[in-house]
Amino acid sequence: MLKAGCTWGIIGSMIPEQPTAPTRVVVVGAGPIGAAVAVDVAARADLRLVGIVDVDPAKQGLDIAGLAVRSDLADVALARGDVAVVCTASALPSLAPTVRACLSRGLHVVSTCEELVWPWEHHPELAAALDAEARSAGCGVVGTGVNPGFLMDALPVFLSAITARIDAISVVRAQDAATRRLPFQHKIGVGLSVAAFEGRVAAGGFLHRGLGESAAFIAAATGLRGSITQSHRPIVNAQGSVDGVEQEARVVDDVGVARITLRFEAWRGHPDPRDEIVIDGEPLLRLTTRGVHGDVATRAIAVNAIVALGRAAPGLRTMLDLPLPVGRFRGAARP
Amino acid sequence: MLKAGCTWGIIGSMIPEQPTAPTRVVVVGAGPIGAAVAVDVAARADLRLVGIVDVDPAKQGLDIAGLAVRSDLADVALARGDVAVVCTASALPSLAPTVRACLSRGLHVVSTCEELVWPWEHHPELAAALDAEARSAGCGVVGTGVNPGFLMDALPVFLSAITARIDAISVVRAQDAATRRLPFQHKIGVGLSVAAFEGRVAAGGFLHRGLGESAAFIAAATGLRGSITQSHRPIVNAQGSVDGVEQEARVVDDVGVARITLRFEAWRGHPDPRDEIVIDGEPLLRLTTRGVHGDVATRAIAVNAIVALGRAAPGLRTMLDLPLPVGRFRGAARP
Repeated sequence: MLKAGCTWGIIGSMIPEQPTAPTRVVVVGAGPIGAAVAVDVAARADLRLVGIVDVDPAKQGLDIAGLAVRSDLADVALARGDVAVVCTASALPSLAPTVRACLSRGLHVVSTCEELVWPWEHHPELAAALDAEARSAGCGVVGTGVNPGFLMDALPVFLSAITARIDAISVVRAQDAATRRLPFQHKIGVGLSVAAFEGRVAAGGFLHRGLGESAAFIAAATGLRGSITQSHRPIVNAQGSVDGVEQEARVVDDVGVARITLRFEAWRGHPDPRDEIVIDGEPLLRLTTRGVHGDVATRAIAVNAIVALGRAAPGLRTMLDLPLPVGRFRGAARP
Repeated sequence: MLKAGCTWGIIGSMIPEQPTAPTRVVVVGAGPIGAAVAVDVAARADLRLVGIVDVDPAKQGLDIAGLAVRSDLADVALARGDVAVVCTASALPSLAPTVRACLSRGLHVVSTCEELVWPWEHHPELAAALDAEARSAGCGVVGTGVNPGFLMDALPVFLSAITARIDAISVVRAQDAATRRLPFQHKIGVGLSVAAFEGRVAAGGFLHRGLGESAAFIAAATGLRGSITQSHRPIVNAQGSVDGVEQEARVVDDVGVARITLRFEAWRGHPDPRDEIVIDGEPLLRLTTRGVHGDVATRAIAVNAIVALGRAAPGLRTMLDLPLPVGRFRGAARP
């Protein structure tokens, strides 16, 4: 039985002995993910939504969770936020000016930017610069999301904690694209001809982003040295049009053996949607997850990472540096 | 932050700018888990085994991983360890003198002590005292293991990070006891009559330990208030003798609804050994793991937690406070 009078919030050093004021959150980017993040933040007892910002003129004044969307971070900075959740760009160079604007206002940054999940892979200089700026601002910056950020990187890495030795890691994320919103379907080429699909690939900014980041994340965390290769192929239906995509990233070690294999499968009518992790080592582990809807999970982990980031040291962080991010029970009070 | 002069890598990009010296590890307790931990530590490039201690006179001088077992921590303290991995007691009061001896020598402590996984539940005063002593020594102390410590607490909590709202959490750990070593089978009553089984339960120190700690861990992490109830029943075969046990812990909320249910099933011939987590909420998540052998996983996470603890602040910690513990690829070099 619990000790009489035990208050759940008081759990050693993890949560301050005194109830703290709610963390004040500014959401930057009022697209589908940002708007959902704002709603979730507003519903949490331990967080307080103090502003929503979007550069799109069409969104100015729009009511989200009781607040009007503003055009400029300077507007809401008056509200003295603690943390910005930035849901704008997939590429780090596009995100960086917003991160810097937040840091200059003393805001910690959680972002769903795919490249920020492991920024050291594609943008080492920019990552080092942002790290230095975050440290000098005394703020933390972290990229998260369900993929990249959780299912194909942080979760397999966490599972590896119960292995005495890793020989190989394989992760499959398989989705029925028909259950996802239209922008997702467009991003993976649903309805295109194969030629149009390949044209879009060549033009860039197409297909699922972040598989390379996930591969680099796992390799760095687990001490694997090697090189990353990526491939993709369209999944074509009987009528010859594209139903979706299969993408793969591999980390090949010094002697040419593929040690990490990440496969992303997303097409209309996928027969077996699931997330599956196999760690071949001591012991051999197999983990299967069902039910992870990408949009819900991404907005959730962005909100849940706010608290975890607040407990990490300043600087550019990854999900490897944070204490465990945690969901909240319905009706959970402030700690 | 860690004390000055500590050899742990500083957080940050996760890849330290320069390779650090291996962390020096003392293992306390040369039983099956402790001995296996010593072997694993000796095999890691980023760790160095500097001593093995056991109070049992029969074990003195025994060679484990190239070192002779010593009788007293004072002997090996000369070797200037950084961290002690303590695999001795299940109950915190029995463990505490060893933790204090380690702290007085400036050693961080990782322990497989079941009650240390969530010490605030059964021993709040002792936990507070150890926390204060660890802080003043500038050292971290953490309890870990596969169960409690991972499968039925830290893993469901980590999975909850991708939920926007939790309504209920259910975890089942089902094992075929025939695959576990004899001391485990004895601990769950294999071969006893029902009367002898209940006699052993009444005498205490019997059955799986830590289910209450896991329940308290999840509740505290996710903001659920309620009370914990535990129950058990022997699994009896056709001949009337005990094949194992089913144990359950529940957290019941203010209005009497069971919100967290943890069920531990371990008997000879269990038809479906698995670990299964269901989080009912937004979204509904189902995670299944197969292949987690308790002894291997416990020794592995104890070793892997060494590095994670080194990156946390001093004090009595839980798995909620540490950055992600991570396994290592075979042949991984020092970071």
